[in-house]
Amino acid sequence: MLRIGILGATGYTAVELIKILLRHPQVEIGVVTSRQEGAPTIASIHPQLTGRLDLRVEDLAPLDVAARCDCVFSCLPHAASAQAIAPMLSTDVRVVDLSADYRLRDPRVYAEWYGDHHPDNGRLGKVVYGLPEFYAAEIAQSQLVANPGCYPTSAILALAPLVRGGLVRPEGIIVDSKSGVSGAGRTPKLNTLFPECNESVAAYNVGHHRHTPEIDQGISMISGKDVQVVFTPHLIPMDRGILTTTYSVPTAGVTETQLMDALRATYASAPFVRVVDHLPATKDCSGTNFCHLTARIVRGRVVTVSVLDNLIKGASGAAVQNMNRMFGYGETLGFY
Amino acid sequence: MLRIGILGATGYTAVELIKILLRHPQVEIGVVTSRQEGAPTIASIHPQLTGRLDLRVEDLAPLDVAARCDCVFSCLPHAASAQAIAPMLSTDVRVVDLSADYRLRDPRVYAEWYGDHHPDNGRLGKVVYGLPEFYAAEIAQSQLVANPGCYPTSAILALAPLVRGGLVRPEGIIVDSKSGVSGAGRTPKLNTLFPECNESVAAYNVGHHRHTPEIDQGISMISGKDVQVVFTPHLIPMDRGILTTTYSVPTAGVTETQLMDALRATYASAPFVRVVDHLPATKDCSGTNFCHLTARIVRGRVVTVSVLDNLIKGASGAAVQNMNRMFGYGETLGFY
Amino acid sequence: MLRIGILGATGYTAVELIKILLRHPQVEIGVVTSRQEGAPTIASIHPQLTGRLDLRVEDLAPLDVAARCDCVFSCLPHAASAQAIAPMLSTDVRVVDLSADYRLRDPRVYAEWYGDHHPDNGRLGKVVYGLPEFYAAEIAQSQLVANPGCYPTSAILALAPLVRGGLVRPEGIIVDSKSGVSGAGRTPKLNTLFPECNESVAAYNVGHHRHTPEIDQGISMISGKDVQVVFTPHLIPMDRGILTTTYSVPTAGVTETQLMDALRATYASAPFVRVVDHLPATKDCSGTNFCHLTARIVRGRVVTVSVLDNLIKGASGAAVQNMNRMFGYGETLGFY
Amino acid sequence: MLRIGILGATGYTAVELIKILLRHPQVEIGVVTSRQEGAPTIASIHPQLTGRLDLRVEDLAPLDVAARCDCVFSCLPHAASAQAIAPMLSTDVRVVDLSADYRLRDPRVYAEWYGDHHPDNGRLGKVVYGLPEFYAAEIAQSQLVANPGCYPTSAILALAPLVRGGLVRPEGIIVDSKSGVSGAGRTPKLNTLFPECNESVAAYNVGHHRHTPEIDQGISMISGKDVQVVFTPHLIPMDRGILTTTYSVPTAGVTETQLMDALRATYASAPFVRVVDHLPATKDCSGTNFCHLTARIVRGRVVTVSVLDNLIKGASGAAVQNMNRMFGYGETLGFY
Repeated sequence: MLRIGILGATGYTAVELIKILLRHPQVEIGVVTSRQEGAPTIASIHPQLTGRLDLRVEDLAPLDVAARCDCVFSCLPHAASAQAIAPMLSTDVRVVDLSADYRLRDPRVYAEWYGDHHPDNGRLGKVVYGLPEFYAAEIAQSQLVANPGCYPTSAILALAPLVRGGLVRPEGIIVDSKSGVSGAGRTPKLNTLFPECNESVAAYNVGHHRHTPEIDQGISMISGKDVQVVFTPHLIPMDRGILTTTYSVPTAGVTETQLMDALRATYASAPFVRVVDHLPATKDCSGTNFCHLTARIVRGRVVTVSVLDNLIKGASGAAVQNMNRMFGYGETLGFY
Repeated sequence: MLRIGILGATGYTAVELIKILLRHPQVEIGVVTSRQEGAPTIASIHPQLTGRLDLRVEDLAPLDVAARCDCVFSCLPHAASAQAIAPMLSTDVRVVDLSADYRLRDPRVYAEWYGDHHPDNGRLGKVVYGLPEFYAAEIAQSQLVANPGCYPTSAILALAPLVRGGLVRPEGIIVDSKSGVSGAGRTPKLNTLFPECNESVAAYNVGHHRHTPEIDQGISMISGKDVQVVFTPHLIPMDRGILTTTYSVPTAGVTETQLMDALRATYASAPFVRVVDHLPATKDCSGTNFCHLTARIVRGRVVTVSVLDNLIKGASGAAVQNMNRMFGYGETLGFY
Repeated sequence: MLRIGILGATGYTAVELIKILLRHPQVEIGVVTSRQEGAPTIASIHPQLTGRLDLRVEDLAPLDVAARCDCVFSCLPHAASAQAIAPMLSTDVRVVDLSADYRLRDPRVYAEWYGDHHPDNGRLGKVVYGLPEFYAAEIAQSQLVANPGCYPTSAILALAPLVRGGLVRPEGIIVDSKSGVSGAGRTPKLNTLFPECNESVAAYNVGHHRHTPEIDQGISMISGKDVQVVFTPHLIPMDRGILTTTYSVPTAGVTETQLMDALRATYASAPFVRVVDHLPATKDCSGTNFCHLTARIVRGRVVTVSVLDNLIKGASGAAVQNMNRMFGYGETLGFY
Repeated sequence: MLRIGILGATGYTAVELIKILLRHPQVEIGVVTSRQEGAPTIASIHPQLTGRLDLRVEDLAPLDVAARCDCVFSCLPHAASAQAIAPMLSTDVRVVDLSADYRLRDPRVYAEWYGDHHPDNGRLGKVVYGLPEFYAAEIAQSQLVANPGCYPTSAILALAPLVRGGLVRPEGIIVDSKSGVSGAGRTPKLNTLFPECNESVAAYNVGHHRHTPEIDQGISMISGKDVQVVFTPHLIPMDRGILTTTYSVPTAGVTETQLMDALRATYASAPFVRVVDHLPATKDCSGTNFCHLTARIVRGRVVTVSVLDNLIKGASGAAVQNMNRMFGYGETLGFY
């Protein structure tokens, strides 16, 4: 049994991660950390875990976690995450980082969007971007994997095959995303208070969302072309789910059939990405590690629609998919 | 007191219309029609009206309604609406049509999107498009006003000033809208059943939504330029509200300040359109006749965000605004 | 025009109060207070007020507010409210207190449920309980009115006529209430974060909710009998609305018809309470000052169901009803 | 591998059942039936199953289903369910009936609440009530198991131990339940349309809900005492989850500790029932087969609060628990 540790176990991605791992036949969760005082039980923090995981959260040093685990997932916020992970990498523990710390390859881009205090700056560009549909081989060889962001996963899965295949132009791509509120985290804030966001929809961080450069980089790396998207996220009154609608310009003569064929060919052997003919709803993938996507041509524009569960395929499910790859299990082990 | 009749009083736009009119000091609702058998009270159909409107729905011929009213609002579905309205126009009753029947000016465009059975085809092109922010004078003179659709109102108010002012290019405009479920009407269908659309978001009618040519026409008429938008509506798990995000290409050298100035200048004397600096949420306008909107430039694209209540500014509120104009009341009478 | 001041203008009851008062033909809002720094506009705190109320919040001493107003509404939290109100009562300003400070008549009961630091203890027992359906005459004569709580209003309106009429026994009454989340206030807390309470229902403060003694007192005062209820509030994933289900034991031979007759007789001339035959939903009264209620006998128990909007009939609407009484306006002025 | 058939596969309980069975290591779903024409794929009916179950729904005679299966689950409506099940019982297939058809033991009670057309009347009283926490041994021996209703499970688990233990009186028990909308089924109706039940709560079927006699019978059978409850169900704007609050009279001298001890003793070895000290929320059990419950004494009344997922512990999860018992698997196999 693989011994698992989870850093930063009090949030929404952590509880989803724990629930997936509890069903996984080859792992055992041994350590869950948090700075909360008094070492409360994990079930008191996440009542969903009552009677399912009998652990207390501990406030441990990174090397103490590493000593007790084969695989560590970090659900810490950015910066805190790299600070905890860096020292562990001198041991032989393997790490999946769910924060944004190691996703961007260029330290200048990181500094521009996240500020200039990356605690492990030198490692940027050397860590695999953990999108298993495109980087399976590298993931399998890695000690550290940078788990992708939720919005980027939904956008890259839909767009990268089309840009790479020369079916849409790399310039002028629009990414309009709609996300459930769990994506905003579990820290109480006015804008995520129930009566503020219930019965309402709003755009936020227009032009400034930190997932923008990650979407750029993901599509650019896969396609070999320079892509800079216009990205607009919206907050939707639901717990979970992301629907991303993209708009791009097809290259000359491209048909809807060619778009769908390119998507189907890309994901022919991807167990969790399904190219569908109908227009998918986020609920179709809610609670699962699937991403459903489709493409249309409307009045000379390519429109794609992709849906996934932001906490699973957009975070913890992808993280377990990565762990499966890293430790040589079947990619779908523990899921369904 | 103006005597009011409402055709098709069982749906969501009708009940909102009634609630607005109940507060209006110059009108009295005298007739509400429906084909429902047994002449039930309007309060049994809309419990919100208990103790507020003591009428029964009647199944009346159009001329019988006209004989009892000064102003008639039609909340009937398209085709049925024109069929009821056409005969009334030979009397001197004045009519606000909330259906789509008289909005499109070109019979061929109507036929292409709605089918070729318009019961009053010859009048298309002669009826004013009832967007009070742009057609106030014509509305005041009209016997019949075509009340705009909810999505078109949100898109046209944001885009028309920018296209007209030459600040954005008329080609390649993207309109991505998010609407509450009340927009889908009150007839039970699987896709608007609570457990189907709650906790979910989906795009629908991609490339086929009937509001597309109305958005084209609205922006084109106001700007004098030929506009064909790509329009994607999405269903959001909330009762009411529309948020529309648009993407367009600015003309050379245009700044965010110029965009905002053009919007502010256009709506300087419009009592219900507010140009705001922050990113508005649908809740900001929920239950009101306001539309809040803003504009940004992001990576060389113009992004606008506009919000309104689909049942009020997007339907019944605009209808009362039109009535106020038609009968010479102050535009805001009865609202706030 | 009556000059109005509102203390503690940043919460949900305050914004509803302002929206009602903006429609009232005899009042003008002149002062809104808050401790927020920098004197922000009220519209920046409540975007719903954009273009409707052009005031900044001020941090004023009570006597400075009193000097500028004829009528003051306090939306402050308990204790803070009495502290602000007490000094104003030496002027001739009249006050509606929406907090709990002056509702309970017995200082010992107040101390038991709220703690022993009431800043104006001596006035308890001398302030009218502002339930206009029962205390209209006293309200009209009062300088200070204690506006009832939301849960108590829903329970007292349903039960008091039945206990007073000897139709149900005063012992063993159960009050099971279901409330929207706005009732929990606008301060960010974990349990009212969207992803915590969306898609969930929970009981809270079982046996300890501070509205318990207010329900006891309200029914006891009106009926002249000693009532102690078992009260269980539940949090429902909706913005607003309270549904209260009560269970009591009928006295010998009582029929459903007698129950309904007693309710109808009590509220025959109450403009905002409607006794209905069907089972009401909170949505029937949402956004209005109405309370709909009904009664049934099931297997030898009396079951009542009453619904209202917690922010309106349960708070700000009742407050304006009280103001109307205090200043001699028609009870419904400004509502519909 | 156990070969599984599912009758009536188009509703919400069926899709949850399929999702649980897909994770079960010892079963294979071979047949899913429905009267829908054209033999659509199950994934076209339930998009959640895309890429997970590659079957078409078939319109088959009961004996044809029985011939291809070891275990059949019926998700048909009542009456239709017994009609399909009765002929299968002459084969050696084993059946879990999720409908109400075989739950009530007394044909007269069935006729009173469901009408007098039970198609297999003679078998009533001979079928085990499939509540695994109380009838594990009988379930293991049975060819046919009557799977309990969702409301009854939540009420019986909380109350039966207390009545059986003599801790509360059997008379005058109140059961006030709050349920998500999925419990109302997948057939489009006005009252379960999104804009009707969103942002609203309502009581329904007060005094008439068909789960009433099942709650009576469940508590009575387990306790050996005659119980007749007052049961009031409420519809809550959420997909899934039931919270049941009960009120009863403790026998002399009973303490909260005794109540909790009795509950803990009853469920000490029940893997899916957890007695908790805090007040549970439905979300704590959402998506799981758990029931969390607690008890309090408030002003001389016993108050219990129990929560479960109506589609899982209240339907399909319990059905798989029963299957596990019937075929000798571990009770929790396939769950977590």
